[in-house]
Amino acid sequence: MNKTKKAVILFSGGLDSTTVLAIAKAQGYSCFCLSFDYGQRQTIELERAKNIAKACNIQDHLILRLDLDAIGGSALTTDTPVPKNRKPGEMEKGIPVTYVPGRNIIFLSHALAWAEVLGAVDIFLGINAVDYSGYPDCRPDFLDAFATMANLGTKNGCEGRPFQLHAPLIAMSKKEIIATGMKLGVDYSMTHSCYDPIGELACGRCDACRLRLNGFAEAGIEDPIRYVKD
Amino acid sequence: MNKTKKAVILFSGGLDSTTVLAIAKAQGYSCFCLSFDYGQRQTIELERAKNIAKACNIQDHLILRLDLDAIGGSALTTDTPVPKNRKPGEMEKGIPVTYVPGRNIIFLSHALAWAEVLGAVDIFLGINAVDYSGYPDCRPDFLDAFATMANLGTKNGCEGRPFQLHAPLIAMSKKEIIATGMKLGVDYSMTHSCYDPIGELACGRCDACRLRLNGFAEAGIEDPIRYVKD
Repeated sequence: MNKTKKAVILFSGGLDSTTVLAIAKAQGYSCFCLSFDYGQRQTIELERAKNIAKACNIQDHLILRLDLDAIGGSALTTDTPVPKNRKPGEMEKGIPVTYVPGRNIIFLSHALAWAEVLGAVDIFLGINAVDYSGYPDCRPDFLDAFATMANLGTKNGCEGRPFQLHAPLIAMSKKEIIATGMKLGVDYSMTHSCYDPIGELACGRCDACRLRLNGFAEAGIEDPIRYVKD
Repeated sequence: MNKTKKAVILFSGGLDSTTVLAIAKAQGYSCFCLSFDYGQRQTIELERAKNIAKACNIQDHLILRLDLDAIGGSALTTDTPVPKNRKPGEMEKGIPVTYVPGRNIIFLSHALAWAEVLGAVDIFLGINAVDYSGYPDCRPDFLDAFATMANLGTKNGCEGRPFQLHAPLIAMSKKEIIATGMKLGVDYSMTHSCYDPIGELACGRCDACRLRLNGFAEAGIEDPIRYVKD
């Protein structure tokens, strides 16, 4: 633990990345949050991200524009409907339609760039291989390969300051993530998870809402955000 | 060779990527060119890229916006002066100030995404490890590691359609690149290489201009573009 060590946090304003921010802060990192306006249907997450970053008194918050909607290929960036009313056990075993081609690779690539400019080597992200087992870019072997590539293709890596990628939630259940965040004082009322929000309200029916609600139920805590059905 | 096979070409409108486009076309690929408006000082390259893409009658040309100037860290995206008047042999052995943190990683990440949406696995790029030996993201070991990562972190890779990264110029000298392009009928008068152009004119003094001019001199051909000194 080093109180002056900088870390870049991939930060969507969701339950997972807000928990990751709390973990990085608890480990003494000076936190630089990185969010993306990538053409996602859930742009409300950017407002939540801004509010949380401000409330957490982080070092800096950078929101970058990406044209992922011009590429398409995902229910999150096109008009393809988001699947609804599926229980966690019923979600497909394959790659979901909410997978965004290259998203975590693109996000992490920008994190490398910003970290290098900041003089940082630590990057935190909230990927999870339990609930999101269908997403190829949420798995440990992907993350290890990304680190290897990053340390060959950047100044940091070539000059003996290898990147460290931290994915503290990767093997946790949603219940464990919520329990971890609660211990660290995370205010989950400020977070957003829904893939298909209606105004300020979460839909309660998409996979992200179902996984979130299920996690809170298993943790024995009421989810403090507002849903359409409320 | 398959005349219906699609390829994504990372395409800056420069000498190298224009040669790569000609190579991919000669190999029978249906070409989809990808360019980036990333806050570079040499935005004129995007105009050149549009003109070349049109003249080459390619399948599609996508220009994506990136906020790399918000990240900074390079002479190409900030006010840091671009080095001038260095002979190819005098350029630093380390990483040049024109290195853009994460640039090729970010570019390739978007190429993966677009290729996946297009149903393509082939990606061409004009990186070169001879003239640009100081750039970590232009080396063969980086490219191999990127392919490994990409095939773990994408739908294509996970569903048995692994990406193939083609870097046909990687071991060529500039002279060899120009000779290859000339044989394929490349019109180099349409290309742009300068890091620090003045209006429509190349400066003739930055590393990119010096390498280009040296390559044409060694190939025994006059560079058809216009320079400030003309």
